[in-house]
Amino acid sequence: MFGVLKRKPLDKLMEVLGKGKVNTSLVERRLYSYDATPIPIQRALPSAVIFPESHEDVVKLVSVCYEEGIPMFPRGAGSGLTGGAVPTVEKGVVVSFERMNHFDVNVDNATAEVQPGVITAQFQEYVEKLGLFYPPDPSSFKYSTLGGNIAENAGGPRCLKYGVTREYVLGLSAVIKDGLSIKTGNPVIKDVAGYDITKLLVGSEGTLGLITSATLKLIPKPRARATVLALFDKLEDVGKAVTKIFTSGVFPSALEFMDADAIKAVEDYKPVGLPKVEALLLIEVDGSHQSVQEDIRIIEELLRPMGVEIRTAKNREEEEKLWSARKSLGPALGNLKSGKINEDIVIPRIYLSEAIPKFREVAQRYNLLMVIFGHIGDGNLHVNFLYDKANREEEERAERAVDEVFELALRYNGSITGEHGVGLTKRKFLRWQFGDAGYELLKGIKLLFDPKNLFNPGKVLED
Amino acid sequence: MFGVLKRKPLDKLMEVLGKGKVNTSLVERRLYSYDATPIPIQRALPSAVIFPESHEDVVKLVSVCYEEGIPMFPRGAGSGLTGGAVPTVEKGVVVSFERMNHFDVNVDNATAEVQPGVITAQFQEYVEKLGLFYPPDPSSFKYSTLGGNIAENAGGPRCLKYGVTREYVLGLSAVIKDGLSIKTGNPVIKDVAGYDITKLLVGSEGTLGLITSATLKLIPKPRARATVLALFDKLEDVGKAVTKIFTSGVFPSALEFMDADAIKAVEDYKPVGLPKVEALLLIEVDGSHQSVQEDIRIIEELLRPMGVEIRTAKNREEEEKLWSARKSLGPALGNLKSGKINEDIVIPRIYLSEAIPKFREVAQRYNLLMVIFGHIGDGNLHVNFLYDKANREEEERAERAVDEVFELALRYNGSITGEHGVGLTKRKFLRWQFGDAGYELLKGIKLLFDPKNLFNPGKVLED
Repeated sequence: MFGVLKRKPLDKLMEVLGKGKVNTSLVERRLYSYDATPIPIQRALPSAVIFPESHEDVVKLVSVCYEEGIPMFPRGAGSGLTGGAVPTVEKGVVVSFERMNHFDVNVDNATAEVQPGVITAQFQEYVEKLGLFYPPDPSSFKYSTLGGNIAENAGGPRCLKYGVTREYVLGLSAVIKDGLSIKTGNPVIKDVAGYDITKLLVGSEGTLGLITSATLKLIPKPRARATVLALFDKLEDVGKAVTKIFTSGVFPSALEFMDADAIKAVEDYKPVGLPKVEALLLIEVDGSHQSVQEDIRIIEELLRPMGVEIRTAKNREEEEKLWSARKSLGPALGNLKSGKINEDIVIPRIYLSEAIPKFREVAQRYNLLMVIFGHIGDGNLHVNFLYDKANREEEERAERAVDEVFELALRYNGSITGEHGVGLTKRKFLRWQFGDAGYELLKGIKLLFDPKNLFNPGKVLED
Repeated sequence: MFGVLKRKPLDKLMEVLGKGKVNTSLVERRLYSYDATPIPIQRALPSAVIFPESHEDVVKLVSVCYEEGIPMFPRGAGSGLTGGAVPTVEKGVVVSFERMNHFDVNVDNATAEVQPGVITAQFQEYVEKLGLFYPPDPSSFKYSTLGGNIAENAGGPRCLKYGVTREYVLGLSAVIKDGLSIKTGNPVIKDVAGYDITKLLVGSEGTLGLITSATLKLIPKPRARATVLALFDKLEDVGKAVTKIFTSGVFPSALEFMDADAIKAVEDYKPVGLPKVEALLLIEVDGSHQSVQEDIRIIEELLRPMGVEIRTAKNREEEEKLWSARKSLGPALGNLKSGKINEDIVIPRIYLSEAIPKFREVAQRYNLLMVIFGHIGDGNLHVNFLYDKANREEEERAERAVDEVFELALRYNGSITGEHGVGLTKRKFLRWQFGDAGYELLKGIKLLFDPKNLFNPGKVLED
């Protein structure tokens, strides 16, 4: 569809942006042609890597690209897992927002203006020192950017209670087709004027335009936090426990789930003293100092009569020990096999105890090691297939197994992705999830913002 | 643009839907040609009032209307304040969802499937008995419908902490152009597959299609609630107090503001013992039994040193007394003048003490009584101009004053509407708020869902 980019358009980009913002060295082009996607995907060396420094730079960039028909592949930190930031055609340019990394917090308004290249963790640390809180916590938060988080509508454990990234984006500045600037929303929480273009751009994975700044909502930072570990002998009791907690008035800030194989993997790797059980839940609550104690007591009273073993933490050290099981999962899985496909399907949590055995059947049929963990409160399960990276045949089996997992998720009224986005790797399932009429609407929206298909072409929607 | 509807298409509607669902009596047509909008608006007698009873009925209805070019004006309870539910052309039909009033709560999944005609308060009472909570609380909640709330993206005091209606809509079924059915979202909290059509339909005021059911998110019901009343001698201290509270870790579930004129109106009407002060805040907190006490104590410690008088409630009765000031505002204003334009602009709360005197200037210039109250935490101010209904000249003055208030709101980086929607009455300001490029996107989205402009034509966007 796209050829190789000619010299002339590149010269034009250098002319309007300045040479220092357009890098055409082979090293840089190669560096910026990857992201964190674990499986082989379509990938091309871009013609250049562009480093805009302002909204005006982005306007100039998009204007030239729209005139010359140059595909643009926006990039935050490249920590995405579905190929969202990867250039797929040689004619394209990668647009890296790393130099647009300023932010400005307005404490009195509890909002912040942020550029897309701000590192999420740095922003969070800053606002927390001011007594404020920006909850979205994708596991990549230490290096991922707010721009990438917004493009992917990033989630994380805390989103059960606090909502996903979309709910914290009050407004956006963006550049769409022909270099047109749009400004959506305002630094206010309530705004019902017109259709919500802001929320439409959040999660659009860079396919509708380039976001140049965002107005984020901040909330009061909870004063205290506490965790309990609950150990289950029966998978079906997990769902019952969650219902009991939810209907008791306790709103956990995280409900992290690990299945028997995940627990085993951790204990084999670095024992933390977990017994052989079917599943565990790490239950975190936050709020005032007194309310977290009250919540923990209520959780214990609810779950102990079910025969669930509860472990509580008396201090910060013991709490970290409780979380160590969850935190050592990554290295534990890496220890088992060199390759891992970590999918992020979502199923209504009522189907959990029915669906997990079906996922296990899939793993058995494809003769694969599988480990499940995830954010049980919102039904977001990370189904991990492990394989040997050197064994292409095993890798292909894992890819086929993942397809069946997607199909199961959709059959259970769920979604193919709760956090990672569609990108390149899940495109073929999107039409199934949306139906023909819905899919045509997605294509219509894309056409409206990007009639030449130059913003991250080939992502989300199939060409 | 539209003429009167011929007999033939009406017969066709009766044929496909059944006579009992198509009412053409003059009485009914007249009854359904109004909503709660307080100012004179364009209004027409519809050709018929349609009462669909199922998604299939709506598909049939939209198919015929799309074939025959019949405008459809969807209606919940008609409690809207901007003309959203009002038919504007005689050729049109009103689509009343009052017979689609079933709902089904899934406690284990903390979600509900609801039809558009369900009364909000009835739904809320039901889920609260199950220990769950549906927070959106527009002041019309006792009679407004969930369908209307979704169409308008309804807010309310509690939305400061809990978010607006949009954040509770996980999925929708709707019928768009040509009678096409679409299903968006799923009964899960996290879903990042494709563009968010669900959130686009929420707040679209019936202009993109007809919503036939929704999947709503429910959360744990807080176990306790408490209120304090704070009395301010200086307007600028209100903003300072809100910042102090927000950065202390206390997240109020409501922060209701009343200005000096609002307080005076209440005291003149039915004295509740409020002193002459510049402003008051009703601060509500919720959570666990212990945390609400802790929160109240913190608020007192923060505000007392500022010279702010704090009144707390020791029991349920005293608490209701605190709220009585806010609750008797409506009748108090009705007592002053027969007519009231209650606008719902939003301005970032940092500009509050600067903007309120400017609003007062406007009222003085037009020689009007004005009272301001609202949800200060989210900057949503209800600016009320009072006038004599029999005095058309005074009414016109009030309408012109409102225009200036909208202009001020936009100048302060705010919005023309935080809760009531655009409808008919605020259309002319929408382009200003969105800019030309943004406004063209709105029109493009409308065209995509409704190429014949038959869903609530003339609302939100100007023809």
